[in-house]
Amino acid sequence: MKHLDGGLENVKGFSYSSIKCGIRYADRLDYSLILSDTMCNAAGVFTTNRMTAAPVKLCRERINGSIRGILVNATNANACTGAEGFTNSKILTADVAKRLNLAEESILMASTGIIGRQLPLDKMLESHGKLITNLSGENGPLLAQAIMTTDTVPKQAAVSFTCGGREYRIAGTAKGSGMIAPRMATLLAFLVTDAPVDRENLEKIFRAAVNKTLNSITIDGDTSTNDTAIILSPDTGKYIQDADSLSAFTEALEAVLMKLAEMLVQDGEGATKSVKIHVINAATDDDAMLIARAVGQSLLVKTAFFGNDPNWGRIACAAGYSGAALEEENLSISIENIPLLVNGIPAEADYSQLEKVLKNRNYTVTVDMGLGSGDAIMLTTDISYDYVKINAQYST
Amino acid sequence: MKHLDGGLENVKGFSYSSIKCGIRYADRLDYSLILSDTMCNAAGVFTTNRMTAAPVKLCRERINGSIRGILVNATNANACTGAEGFTNSKILTADVAKRLNLAEESILMASTGIIGRQLPLDKMLESHGKLITNLSGENGPLLAQAIMTTDTVPKQAAVSFTCGGREYRIAGTAKGSGMIAPRMATLLAFLVTDAPVDRENLEKIFRAAVNKTLNSITIDGDTSTNDTAIILSPDTGKYIQDADSLSAFTEALEAVLMKLAEMLVQDGEGATKSVKIHVINAATDDDAMLIARAVGQSLLVKTAFFGNDPNWGRIACAAGYSGAALEEENLSISIENIPLLVNGIPAEADYSQLEKVLKNRNYTVTVDMGLGSGDAIMLTTDISYDYVKINAQYST
Repeated sequence: MKHLDGGLENVKGFSYSSIKCGIRYADRLDYSLILSDTMCNAAGVFTTNRMTAAPVKLCRERINGSIRGILVNATNANACTGAEGFTNSKILTADVAKRLNLAEESILMASTGIIGRQLPLDKMLESHGKLITNLSGENGPLLAQAIMTTDTVPKQAAVSFTCGGREYRIAGTAKGSGMIAPRMATLLAFLVTDAPVDRENLEKIFRAAVNKTLNSITIDGDTSTNDTAIILSPDTGKYIQDADSLSAFTEALEAVLMKLAEMLVQDGEGATKSVKIHVINAATDDDAMLIARAVGQSLLVKTAFFGNDPNWGRIACAAGYSGAALEEENLSISIENIPLLVNGIPAEADYSQLEKVLKNRNYTVTVDMGLGSGDAIMLTTDISYDYVKINAQYST
Repeated sequence: MKHLDGGLENVKGFSYSSIKCGIRYADRLDYSLILSDTMCNAAGVFTTNRMTAAPVKLCRERINGSIRGILVNATNANACTGAEGFTNSKILTADVAKRLNLAEESILMASTGIIGRQLPLDKMLESHGKLITNLSGENGPLLAQAIMTTDTVPKQAAVSFTCGGREYRIAGTAKGSGMIAPRMATLLAFLVTDAPVDRENLEKIFRAAVNKTLNSITIDGDTSTNDTAIILSPDTGKYIQDADSLSAFTEALEAVLMKLAEMLVQDGEGATKSVKIHVINAATDDDAMLIARAVGQSLLVKTAFFGNDPNWGRIACAAGYSGAALEEENLSISIENIPLLVNGIPAEADYSQLEKVLKNRNYTVTVDMGLGSGDAIMLTTDISYDYVKINAQYST
């Protein structure tokens, strides 16, 4: 497996278009189309929020069919928009499909932005001609930029891998820097591959890979209404199916997803830190995840990270209320191998060394439960003044 | 029932002492004693955190016995301090008991402050003479001040009520402005009454009243290691036991606890708002509480409150991920009777009127699920720059 520069444009057989439609703001890329040259199998992982946006409902209806493309808009989530919002997403995908001479069910849709406003339907329909004209295999970076909301940098990743003597590629892009929680961790992620994988394997492998990557990051603990991760794989009828090939595909997919996940955390709203919470020796893997989430989401832990504050008591406290099994006399906590709590007893830490570590942008907190063999990792951010500022001013 | 000015000093039969012991800082009240003239029945509600502080363990052992007093220190939580920390709390209570010629099990202890440091035992033992000399029925306000950590104002409340032709009183004090979550909502609360209530009724009534009051507030969603609420009632042998009297006692107790709860939210760390989340017509009461908690704890909702931002989409989003039953077409949201979402459709809100309401310090958000008759209330704060500042700088 080899990491490649850039993103979506690395995979042949797909084209992209992003334009300034003026959905909410006058002068920004906000409307995009991903189109495959051939019919694709698709797999999707969507928000677990019961308040689901119209485009998520649409994707759920269509994802198991033959897919050719994905329509994507930023700046308006088309969530809490009732029957009208759902109808709008159908009208938009139907119009694009018609212009391309495709079945309307072959186009998916994803939206991100403000909740509770109807899409400007006429304006968007009028732009479809231009949207299609602009399609090009080189426009991957433009799309990565067009789907951003409060993101400060576009996020893209690509790898190549070999199986059965052939080189394949997987590439992806993602956006999301607020409303990021560990159950479906990003607002939008789109992946394409030229590796043909049958629908059943694609679904299984994609879901597992998302769980290990996008679902292991948290910024503010809010699961959004619009979370959508979709992969498209050409439906050639001749699939890679032997165990070795699928395993190479899985490894490559996880690499792309993990790179995107890390980029999302690095660009978390207002974040000045990217901290890995590594829980080891918990009673079970589920317990380890409960602890990793409680620590990674604790406001007190996250503000301490921001303050470069070795306040490990807050980490112990969060582990304590996580719901997981905990024996105080077995609990140890360290930051970058500097022990702070050892079997329930505060350690004589080297605070000058610790101070240096805490000033870094990236470090690892290890929580050793001393109970079993369960482990879990959660990538989290700090909570800074800027997080508050960004989110106090977003809607109005 | 009548509300009284002041706090603990309103109840005869108890005395209080607070001194500057220098536990962590040189010049602040940090060590206190509450002493009853007679043996008391006590009831306590403690943290559900599995990482419990030494004094909480001590209280759990002793709370069902005959109680005479409570030793309280601020600035050091005596949490994550292992066997040594537990022994220290025993040594301290035993020494106070011995000086007062009492059984050591009759003294409870509560601590608040930094996690993970041992108490300065010698210094505290040396101060016990002075602590006892200073006991006085008039020192209630001093104690309310001595238990504060990041609180900016002391919190006390008192009421009188009549039953069986006699006037009784209940008074209390509480501290807590961070690490406040809806399961055991305050770090420390102490209540005293001259109404004699038997242990079984006291326990039942106190637990229910705490659930309706202290357990319905949230500031940052972190359940602390030290949460302790204790009430002392004189063990006269002749208890108020008829239904009318107990109901008058319950009403008075809830009034004191609710006033303390409201004061805690008003003084939430860095808070500029105190917002009541009122969930109505949920499928069940439990569902209503899930929704109220999710909304009241959402960072995105709380930063929107700070920004005076009518971003009701974030409220709908939090309701959606709360785990409670939700039908989008039944959901309505309003702020102070201004409808924002009606049966799943965004309302044409009067945004100029809304703007005025959102600038107030106190207002109510109503989430109408339209599904059943479950309801719940959660008092919450906003999250401001100052919350981040206070918590980024607390330990070091």
